[in-house]
Amino acid sequence: MTAEAKGAGLMIGVDVGGTKICALALNQKHEVLGRSRAKTGAEDGLDAVMERIEQCAIEAAKGAGGTMKDVVRLGIGIPGPVLPGTGTVIFAPNLGWDTVPVASIMSGRLKMPVMVGNDVNVGTWGEYIMGAGKGAKSVLGVFWGTGVGGGIVLNGKLLEGKNGTAAEIGHTLLKVGGRKCACGKRGCLEAYCGRLAIAADIGRAIRKGQTSVITELAKGNLNRIATGAIRKALVRDDAVVCKAIRRASRYLAEGIGSAVNLLGPDRVIIGGGVSELLEVDPSLMTYVQSKIRKRSIQESMRDVDIVLAKLGDDAVAVGAALLAESGTVS
Amino acid sequence: MTAEAKGAGLMIGVDVGGTKICALALNQKHEVLGRSRAKTGAEDGLDAVMERIEQCAIEAAKGAGGTMKDVVRLGIGIPGPVLPGTGTVIFAPNLGWDTVPVASIMSGRLKMPVMVGNDVNVGTWGEYIMGAGKGAKSVLGVFWGTGVGGGIVLNGKLLEGKNGTAAEIGHTLLKVGGRKCACGKRGCLEAYCGRLAIAADIGRAIRKGQTSVITELAKGNLNRIATGAIRKALVRDDAVVCKAIRRASRYLAEGIGSAVNLLGPDRVIIGGGVSELLEVDPSLMTYVQSKIRKRSIQESMRDVDIVLAKLGDDAVAVGAALLAESGTVS
Repeated sequence: MTAEAKGAGLMIGVDVGGTKICALALNQKHEVLGRSRAKTGAEDGLDAVMERIEQCAIEAAKGAGGTMKDVVRLGIGIPGPVLPGTGTVIFAPNLGWDTVPVASIMSGRLKMPVMVGNDVNVGTWGEYIMGAGKGAKSVLGVFWGTGVGGGIVLNGKLLEGKNGTAAEIGHTLLKVGGRKCACGKRGCLEAYCGRLAIAADIGRAIRKGQTSVITELAKGNLNRIATGAIRKALVRDDAVVCKAIRRASRYLAEGIGSAVNLLGPDRVIIGGGVSELLEVDPSLMTYVQSKIRKRSIQESMRDVDIVLAKLGDDAVAVGAALLAESGTVS
Repeated sequence: MTAEAKGAGLMIGVDVGGTKICALALNQKHEVLGRSRAKTGAEDGLDAVMERIEQCAIEAAKGAGGTMKDVVRLGIGIPGPVLPGTGTVIFAPNLGWDTVPVASIMSGRLKMPVMVGNDVNVGTWGEYIMGAGKGAKSVLGVFWGTGVGGGIVLNGKLLEGKNGTAAEIGHTLLKVGGRKCACGKRGCLEAYCGRLAIAADIGRAIRKGQTSVITELAKGNLNRIATGAIRKALVRDDAVVCKAIRRASRYLAEGIGSAVNLLGPDRVIIGGGVSELLEVDPSLMTYVQSKIRKRSIQESMRDVDIVLAKLGDDAVAVGAALLAESGTVS
């Protein structure tokens, strides 16, 4: 097969995160043929980031044996709301962006149609088409990481919401008047079970005098406990960490159950960095599943699966390429 | 105009409640030409209720100057989940029903296609097409009564959910591990702001020794305070009642704001018996609106209206007729 034939009809998906940009090149059969990554370096300004997105796309196309001439579609996932039908990012705190017409800028640079979507929405779309959502009609995707993000597909359509802000499950209520969330409101789900909340819980327990292997694993920096350290502590059955994770899992499950009562999906997909812990300890996944079912209206869970995501870190880039293909987000 | 001409092409919508059945006959222009009502008498058994639904339909058609031969479509709203695509009511506690194929039974009796939907969903559809939702693309309807029901229309389609249980905003979380709800779970929105919860709050205050005109208005029966009595006390600026209503309003608003973060509708419609209080005291409506906006992600509320329902008690019957017309619920 020649490079030209191999590269023909490529779709590129780009995941623009706060720290890194990842691009994937897919062929028409949805096989990942090329990939590339770069530091985002948002502090260098908008033009620099746009340039890096373009370079990543070129590299991914090259990895797939082609050039940008072989690319027929490009999609981008951004950590912020995107105004439906415009490809304009309303704001993206991790990038320091405020009203950036990403689709227009990038399609001008690349001379091709560019689709832009919110990263978690786009990641859910990726799971829906190629990952854990295959075969479902409607899915609720929950991405459990530093914060808690969500994506909703209903009857085959991604829900964006009037202002591109739909599916923000991390900012649905867990407890009215409760803990202060990073968003400024009180009682959000994220404030109880995001990775930062879990780390804070562990820190509190230790400051109260409980002992934990996490003190050593986190190298003394209890304010910045990484998921990797939590995982190691969990494997070692550390009481403080196990308790914190179990509590966070319960909170997550209550929030998901509450959302199920509103949405009635036929599949719930749990992904994101912290969800790896549910793979480490299958009894924890069983616990989450049972708590979701307990919180939901019984009838709403009939024949509803609660599963782990399958695409891992590729979800957003894959989803961006697939959305660009289907054209349902502009 | 002859009776025949007047009655031609009628659509009938029937609202089957726990205590009464209401039927409306609409013409093709969506004008209400006839109406009738009867006691439900669910204790007389399923056949008796089906018979009364049929009689109500006949009476409504007659009121519109026609007969059942002039009726082209019939829709029914039921207080319980309806399995999508079947017209089968899964359960309806207020009617004592468990798995009743209402569409099949009634279409057999009436020899015409019959559509069946959940009453609150159907009521939201009525508001969407003919009431406070006119012109919106996506609405969240919240019906504030004895309990709190919800209906969701997204991009012109009623959301039913996998098992017909979607839009149950009354059973979304307000406070994890909180008050016991009638559904058996803890912390549901309904347990904090439904009419029964408001009455319980007022009762508690009075038993603690606070004085209120409601004691007289409720004729001593503090366990069964009607909305009418609450309204009168509110008009008379009764401190205990004002405080209870304000608290319930805040809880309702927090729950709605949380749901907005998930759904991103372009209009929120508040209806139901208790919502009349928001008409009695416009400052209360302003309070609810401001609390919803405060709870929601700021961006999600841009150009989103929060309005009162317009169809009152007719919403379900009107919506049932309109759903039968559009055929989106079977």
